[in-house]
Amino acid sequence: MATFYGIGVGPGDSDLLTLKAVNTLQALDILYVPQAHKGQASVAERIAMPHLPATLVVKRRHFPMVKDLTEKQQSWREIATEIVADVQDGKNVGFVTLGDPSVYSTYSYLVELIDHQIDVQTIAGISAFSQIAASISVPLTLDDELLEVLPATADLTTIEKAIDVNDNVVIMKISANFPAIYDLLAQRDLLQHAILISNASMDQQTKRTLADIAPTEKLPYFSTLLLKKRVQFATE
Amino acid sequence: MATFYGIGVGPGDSDLLTLKAVNTLQALDILYVPQAHKGQASVAERIAMPHLPATLVVKRRHFPMVKDLTEKQQSWREIATEIVADVQDGKNVGFVTLGDPSVYSTYSYLVELIDHQIDVQTIAGISAFSQIAASISVPLTLDDELLEVLPATADLTTIEKAIDVNDNVVIMKISANFPAIYDLLAQRDLLQHAILISNASMDQQTKRTLADIAPTEKLPYFSTLLLKKRVQFATE
Repeated sequence: MATFYGIGVGPGDSDLLTLKAVNTLQALDILYVPQAHKGQASVAERIAMPHLPATLVVKRRHFPMVKDLTEKQQSWREIATEIVADVQDGKNVGFVTLGDPSVYSTYSYLVELIDHQIDVQTIAGISAFSQIAASISVPLTLDDELLEVLPATADLTTIEKAIDVNDNVVIMKISANFPAIYDLLAQRDLLQHAILISNASMDQQTKRTLADIAPTEKLPYFSTLLLKKRVQFATE
Repeated sequence: MATFYGIGVGPGDSDLLTLKAVNTLQALDILYVPQAHKGQASVAERIAMPHLPATLVVKRRHFPMVKDLTEKQQSWREIATEIVADVQDGKNVGFVTLGDPSVYSTYSYLVELIDHQIDVQTIAGISAFSQIAASISVPLTLDDELLEVLPATADLTTIEKAIDVNDNVVIMKISANFPAIYDLLAQRDLLQHAILISNASMDQQTKRTLADIAPTEKLPYFSTLLLKKRVQFATE
C-alpha cells in the first residue's frame, strides 16, 4: 500500500540516519523537502543527500518560518493536499525532517493536516539533545533523575520552574531567548553546569560551558543548552 | 588511536541502528556485551547481531541487576579495568547498549568508572520514547510544550508533580510502579491520554491506552508510558 513516510534525518551528520531511514529513502517515489529560502537545499535535504537514489523525484516546498501558526498552517495545507494526492495516486512519498520527527517538528503539523486520509509511517531520528549528550559522553539522565526538554520560546516563568525542579534540563533553540536564560542560570550559580552546543554533529560544531560565553553573544540558530546540576563542566 | 565506543543499538529493530553505529561495530576488534543471564545473549547483543563482523571477539560480561549501586559498581569496575587494558593494548573496543547510551544506561556508569584513562566516543541511538512516538505518529512535543522524561522508580510525589506540571510525560520502565501511577492518572481522568507501549519496535510490540488495561496487570519489563494531555487516544 502506498504510504507517506516522515523520516528523521538526525542532527547533521549523514551517518546519523538509521538504516531504516536510509532504506525508506531508497524505496520512495517522491520526496518532499522543506525549503527555507528559494533555490537552496534545506539542512534536512543536505543531510539526506548522500542517501537519495538518482531516480527520486524531489519536490522542494516552502514552509514559511513565521510566528503565527494559523498563517503557517494555510501554506502547509496546500502541501498536505499535494502529498495526499500523490499517495492516493499509488506513490510512496517521503518528507525529511531534521533530528527526530516527534520533537518540535513541522512534520507533526503536516501529519495532523493529513488527518488519517492516507497511511502514515514515522521513522524516528536522533534528536539534537541525544547527539549533544553523546558528543560529550555525558548522560542526559541517570538513576531516578528527571529530564525536562523545552524550547527557549516557552515563557520565562516556565523555564525558571523547569530549571529549579529538574536535575537535567535541555533547552532547544536557545538563541531565541539566550540573555534571559543566561541570567537565570547565573543567578543560581549554574553557568559551569550548563553546556551549549551549536550545530551538533555538523562540521561547524562548537561546545562551550556558559561560563565561557558572554550573555550578549549572538548564537547560531541550531544551538541547544544542556544543564546538568550534578556535573560541573570544565571551562577553557 | 585506539578508542572505547559506547554504541546505542536503539529500541529493538536491528534497522534502527544508525549507519554510524553499524560502521563502528564493523571496525571493532573487541565488543563487550552485557549479559543478564548466563549463556544467553542480551537484548542489546541480539539487536546488534546482524551487523557484527564474523571476526569480532565478543566478550559477554555479567552486569548484575541489583538495586544497590555500590554493589553494581564493584562488578562494573572489573569490566572497566578490562576494557581500559584492551584499549591500552591498541584494540578498538565497543560496548552495546539498548536505546540511547545517554538515557538511563549502564554505559554511563562504565564511562564514569573508566574516568578519562582512555579515549571514549559515544554513538547516539534511538531511545524507546522516541520510537514510541514514531510508532503512533504522534509528537512527543510541539510549539512551546514541555516534555518530562522520568523513570517509574522515582518517588511518587515527584511523578505526581511531573504529571501535573507538564504537557507531555514519558515514564520509563513503568512496570516497576504501575498500579500507583495508574491511580494518579485515573484520579485526574487522564487514562485515555496515556498510551502504554511494550517492546517498542520488537516483534512482540503492543500498544494500548491505559483505559484498556487493568491496574493490576503484570506488564513486560520494556514498557513505557506516554502521557499527552492534549491528545485523547482511541480505546479498543
